[in-house]
Amino acid sequence: MICTGCQKEYSLDRMFPRCDDCFEPLEVKINSSKPFLKDPISFSENIIKRYHSFYSFKEIDERLSLYEGFTPLIKSNSLSQLLGLDSVYIKNETVNPTWSFKDRGTYTALQHALSLGYNSVGTISSGNMGVSVAAYGARAGVRTIILVSSDLPQEKLNPILVYEPILIKVKGDYSKIYYESLKIGQELGIYFLNSDIPFRVEGSKSIAFEICEQLNYLVPDYVVIPTSSGGNARGIIKGFLEFYEHKLISKVPTIIAAQLEGCAPIYQAWINKKDRISTVQNPQAIDNAIANASPPSGNELLRKLKKYDGLAVAVSDQEALQGQLMLASEGIFAQPAAAVSISAIRKLKKEGTINRQSRCVALVTGAGLKYSGILEKQKFIFSTGLLKDLKGIIKTKLDN
Amino acid sequence: MICTGCQKEYSLDRMFPRCDDCFEPLEVKINSSKPFLKDPISFSENIIKRYHSFYSFKEIDERLSLYEGFTPLIKSNSLSQLLGLDSVYIKNETVNPTWSFKDRGTYTALQHALSLGYNSVGTISSGNMGVSVAAYGARAGVRTIILVSSDLPQEKLNPILVYEPILIKVKGDYSKIYYESLKIGQELGIYFLNSDIPFRVEGSKSIAFEICEQLNYLVPDYVVIPTSSGGNARGIIKGFLEFYEHKLISKVPTIIAAQLEGCAPIYQAWINKKDRISTVQNPQAIDNAIANASPPSGNELLRKLKKYDGLAVAVSDQEALQGQLMLASEGIFAQPAAAVSISAIRKLKKEGTINRQSRCVALVTGAGLKYSGILEKQKFIFSTGLLKDLKGIIKTKLDN
Repeated sequence: MICTGCQKEYSLDRMFPRCDDCFEPLEVKINSSKPFLKDPISFSENIIKRYHSFYSFKEIDERLSLYEGFTPLIKSNSLSQLLGLDSVYIKNETVNPTWSFKDRGTYTALQHALSLGYNSVGTISSGNMGVSVAAYGARAGVRTIILVSSDLPQEKLNPILVYEPILIKVKGDYSKIYYESLKIGQELGIYFLNSDIPFRVEGSKSIAFEICEQLNYLVPDYVVIPTSSGGNARGIIKGFLEFYEHKLISKVPTIIAAQLEGCAPIYQAWINKKDRISTVQNPQAIDNAIANASPPSGNELLRKLKKYDGLAVAVSDQEALQGQLMLASEGIFAQPAAAVSISAIRKLKKEGTINRQSRCVALVTGAGLKYSGILEKQKFIFSTGLLKDLKGIIKTKLDN
Repeated sequence: MICTGCQKEYSLDRMFPRCDDCFEPLEVKINSSKPFLKDPISFSENIIKRYHSFYSFKEIDERLSLYEGFTPLIKSNSLSQLLGLDSVYIKNETVNPTWSFKDRGTYTALQHALSLGYNSVGTISSGNMGVSVAAYGARAGVRTIILVSSDLPQEKLNPILVYEPILIKVKGDYSKIYYESLKIGQELGIYFLNSDIPFRVEGSKSIAFEICEQLNYLVPDYVVIPTSSGGNARGIIKGFLEFYEHKLISKVPTIIAAQLEGCAPIYQAWINKKDRISTVQNPQAIDNAIANASPPSGNELLRKLKKYDGLAVAVSDQEALQGQLMLASEGIFAQPAAAVSISAIRKLKKEGTINRQSRCVALVTGAGLKYSGILEKQKFIFSTGLLKDLKGIIKTKLDN
C-alpha cells in the first residue's frame, strides 16, 4: 500500500488505514502484472431472451427491462446447521429492481400488454405489486393505475407514489376489487397486470429455470414458496414442468406452499383435502403481502399440489418473525411474508417431513425494508456512550 | 392459452385472464418445440474472482459473498430527452444485497480483515454502511460493532438491528468518532471497515470495471458520483486508471463529484481552488447519507480531481428531490443522496459544461426505500372510491 498524501509505502497486511506520518488515507498500489480478463459476460441478460424457447413472445421490447431476475441462489453458512439440514439454499428475490419477485411477471405481462397495443395498465396491490407495476409503467411511459385498499398505511404508499402513477384508494373487499378491476379493464381498455394473470405466471417460471441452472440441473428435493394469490407458485411449478418435459431435469421437486396461519386458505383446503378454497373470514396476519383471503389461483394451485405431490404448510406470525432473524443471520433482510419459507422448512424438519439429507430451496420473495417498522429490537442497542467512554463500552461488550 | 379448470383453449392475444365458462385462471400452454438453451452463464460471479488480476488477494473465502456487484447499467428511455442529452446511463447500485454500493467494499474489506485473522469487525455509519457491515458480519459469523450517531432516527436503525450486531449510539462529532474508532480498533483488535479504508476503496474499483465492460470498453465522457466521505469516488477513479494503465480503455472519463449544497466540503474546496477541505459548520442536508462535514478522503479526492481534470458540483435539496422523481420516471427509486448524480447532470447541461453529445453515467448509490418517509406526494392520490364508483373514477382520471 502507499500513502495518497506523502507516498510512504506500507505492507498489504496492515490494518490501520491512514499514514503514520501525514495521516492521509492509504491506497493499495496498482498491480503491475499483466491482467487476465475472462471472456466478456453479459450484464444485460433478460429472462425472456435467455429462455426464449420457453416463451411464446415473437418479439419483445427490451427497453422495458430493468434487468429483473437472475437473482442469487445463496448457500447458507450457519443456518443449515441450525435447521439440522445438510444444505439449504436461499433464492434471494429481494435484489430485483423493485426488491421483490413481482418484477419478473410485471416485465413479461407488460410485454404482452404492449404487444396487444394497450397503452394503459393497472393492478391492485397491497404493496410489492403496486411498486413493481408503477415502476415498470413509468419506464414504459404508459398510463398506470394502481388500486390499493383504503386502509393501506402511508409507509406502503410512498414507494408506489414516487413513480407518479394514478393511485386510487378503494374501500371494499380486496378479492371483489380484484375481479372488478379485470372487468373494468376490459371495458375501458386497461390491461390489469394482476397477481395471477397468465403472462405474469410466465414471468415466475424463470425462478424455476434459474434454480435448475444454478444447481447444475441437480434439482432440489423441496422448493418452498411463500404463497398468497397462488400465481407465483403456479409459475414456478410450470417452469420445473417445462424443463422436465424437455428432459433438462430428471424430476420435479416437491413444491411446498407456505402461508401464515392467520390467513391460510390454501393450507386449510389442502389439509382438509378439499378441492376448492374457502374465503378466510377476518384474516389476521402480520404482513398483508401474504394475506390474500380468497386467492384467485387457489383452486388451481390445489390441483397442482395434488397432481405433483406437493405440500402446504402454515406458520405463525411469531415463526415468521423468527424466520426473518434466521435469514438475517445469513445477511438477508426479508419481509416477514418472505420469511415464511425458511420458517416452513424449520417446521417440516421438526415434524420429520423433511429429513437431514433433503436439499431445500427457500424462496425469499421481498425485501424487509418495505416493512421495517415491525422491528423494534431495542435490546440490541447497548448504550448511549460519550466519545470518551467509547473504548470502555466496546471492550465490555466484546468481553461479554 | 388453456383454462386451468376446464381446459378450454384461448388465443394468446387475449387480455382477460380468466375462463369465460368456469372463471378459473388461464395459463400459457407449454411450448412443445425443441428448446434451445445458451451456454450456462455464471450466476455466481464474484467481483474479486472476476477481476482477480486487479486485486492483491492471494486467496478469498467465497462463503462471505452475498453476490454483491454486477449491477445493471440502464440506458434511459425518456430521461435523456428531458435532459437534452443523446445518451444517459444509470448504474443502479440499489440492487446490491443490502441495496447500496457499500456491499462491494464491505466484501473486499472483510476478506482483508479475515485474512489477517481478525474475528471482530466494526464501522461507524449513518445508515447504508451500518446495514452492509452488519449483514456481512452476520453472514461471516464474526462479532460486529456498529457505531451510530445518537440522533439517528429509529427508521434507520431497524434495518441494521435485524442482523443483531452490537449497536452503540455515540454522542459527539461524527468525524472525531471516525478516527477514534480506528484507534480503538487498533487497541482492541477490531478491524473497522470505515468508509474510505484502502480495502473498501478496492471494492469500489469494480464499479468502474463493470461500466467499462457494460459499454464494451467505449468509456463514457462523464461519470457522476454522489460523494460523501470520498472513498467510493477514489475507488472508481482507481478502477478506471487501472484499466487505462493496462490499455483496456483509451481514456479515463471525467469524474464529477456531486454533493448537496448544505454540506459540500469537497465542492467548496474545489471551486475555491483549495488543496485541503475545511470542515462544514452546521451542515444542513436533506439526506445524511451524503452529509459528511469532514470527509476523510476529501484531500485525496481533491488531488485526484486536479490531476485527472475532474469536476465537483453541488445541488440543492430541492434539486435532489427532483432528481429522485427523474430517476423514478425510469423505474428506479433512489434515496435523495443517490439522486444528486442525475441532478448534477441536469445542472451541468444547463450551464453548458456538458453538451448534448456527451455520454454520461449517473451512479445511483442507494435505494429510496431506506428513506421513503421523505415522500409525501399526496397529490397523486386521486380519490377514495367505493367499489361501485370505481369504473367512473378510473374513466375520469384516464380522460384527464
